[in-house]
Amino acid sequence: MKNNLKNIGLIGLGKMGQLIGTILLDKNYKISVWNRTSTKTDKLSDKGATVETGIENIIKGNELIIITLSNYKNIYEIFKEIDNFNKAHIVNLTSGSPTAANELSKWITDKNGNYLDGAMLAIPETLGTDEANLIFSGNSQSFKENKSELSLLGNTHYLGTSPDYAEMYDTALLSASYGALAGFFNATLIAEIINVKPTDFIKLLVPWLTSIVQFMPHLANEIEHKSYNNGDSNIDINQVAVEHLIHSNLLHNIPTNLHKPLNNYLQKQVEMGNEKKSFSIIYESLKKERKALIDSQSSTNYLKEDLY
Amino acid sequence: MKNNLKNIGLIGLGKMGQLIGTILLDKNYKISVWNRTSTKTDKLSDKGATVETGIENIIKGNELIIITLSNYKNIYEIFKEIDNFNKAHIVNLTSGSPTAANELSKWITDKNGNYLDGAMLAIPETLGTDEANLIFSGNSQSFKENKSELSLLGNTHYLGTSPDYAEMYDTALLSASYGALAGFFNATLIAEIINVKPTDFIKLLVPWLTSIVQFMPHLANEIEHKSYNNGDSNIDINQVAVEHLIHSNLLHNIPTNLHKPLNNYLQKQVEMGNEKKSFSIIYESLKKERKALIDSQSSTNYLKEDLY
Repeated sequence: MKNNLKNIGLIGLGKMGQLIGTILLDKNYKISVWNRTSTKTDKLSDKGATVETGIENIIKGNELIIITLSNYKNIYEIFKEIDNFNKAHIVNLTSGSPTAANELSKWITDKNGNYLDGAMLAIPETLGTDEANLIFSGNSQSFKENKSELSLLGNTHYLGTSPDYAEMYDTALLSASYGALAGFFNATLIAEIINVKPTDFIKLLVPWLTSIVQFMPHLANEIEHKSYNNGDSNIDINQVAVEHLIHSNLLHNIPTNLHKPLNNYLQKQVEMGNEKKSFSIIYESLKKERKALIDSQSSTNYLKEDLY
Repeated sequence: MKNNLKNIGLIGLGKMGQLIGTILLDKNYKISVWNRTSTKTDKLSDKGATVETGIENIIKGNELIIITLSNYKNIYEIFKEIDNFNKAHIVNLTSGSPTAANELSKWITDKNGNYLDGAMLAIPETLGTDEANLIFSGNSQSFKENKSELSLLGNTHYLGTSPDYAEMYDTALLSASYGALAGFFNATLIAEIINVKPTDFIKLLVPWLTSIVQFMPHLANEIEHKSYNNGDSNIDINQVAVEHLIHSNLLHNIPTNLHKPLNNYLQKQVEMGNEKKSFSIIYESLKKERKALIDSQSSTNYLKEDLY
């Protein structure tokens, strides 16, 4: 069946790759798939996808190529024989570090390809729905020309030409969620000490954390407008609460390092006379610390180790 | 109007105290109120509360006395002339450190009072509804005899006779929420660096964190059953993600201390060969670190400083 829709290549057929293939086939796109493990191509093949055994055929035969692999090393490995990407738009949805995204962008652009980096904020159940969000950065033409196809996967957001920005956005979300998860482990340990089972504790923790998350837009608004004078939750009560928390944790030999940075910021805000400012002014402490780090260039040496 | 309901005294008429008074008056309880700032008693007085000017009248005239003050120092100050609490049940909903709860319990019990410590997991809007939860610990008789009154404020949970447990429960919740909030600040700073405004970023952060919070009961269940073999999110992918996060933060001079403890636990789990275990096994790392702290008694010296 012929149509005017563009040919799309898919590299990597994990859970997300399979779902992307299904969504595109449902919209009558002609897709070609490639996967290292050939059995994984069966399902999409049954639905009408062309299975390619050589990666060069994927590059040659498609204007848009979507990659969902488990890491960047696999991408270099799969593409190692490719000398010319023939202006194909390579949209990479593989999670990686921002630096790795920049390097891969250069590597593909140098070989005549167009690189767009992407991050999927979606779970399998939401992909292809309005609940899924996809963040992109890199080649702006790649985004413009393929926006209608990429929008089939969820809401699309383009952050700019710097290829690392999509991964940094992902990193920002992870920064918040790993803070919450680290807190969850500490919290569960405190509950255990007072004989409250994890599955009982979580029943009150979930609504509590939900209310905190719902309070965050208020804090975000204060931060954006540097409006710290009319907070619902001020520095003073938070400083006392975190001090109690650390004190109690010390008493029960629960590691306190998770909460020490916040405790330091709160103490400094009190020293500055900001007891009655909104809790959100902590953001200014964090920015101040970042500025001090930039001024001292203290992180430069550590970066010489290649972490990814 | 006479009735068989017990007389209840209220000390402290901040937002929560006012609401508690209103809820009890609506249920036809006869209440007496005391507040340092006498103007704050007006509203409840209009609704039928008796205003006491001497704190000893509150103690003498009521079987149940509920305290909502801003800190424990004020409680000692207000009660300084009281030598005998006449077996009154003192239910203290003031937030404080677990240690302070133990000390106040002893102080009141020594003066012939019954002490029950409580923590309100409620915002003003939910107090008196099924969404509010109140945690209690301390004198079990105080809880039993006043459960029906306290239940008017929300769901009640009694943790045992140790007066500090209610405050520790509160501390556990705060441990989780301050982890999330510290993560929120870091996340917002990363977003700013890639030119995403706080009020835009929060639109995707809220659903993301909500999904993480909804995943926590699953982790709690794994922790409770030490069932780490069939996780939906394993050590390996989380270890790589946190490493990317820290690498990216170092590169952009964003403080990394918030995420270092989790990063260390993840690395150790990988070293132990647990790449394919569930992320929830991090809880065992935290417990192991606690055990090491107990063994070394390393926190003892720090505790000599009185933090509260």
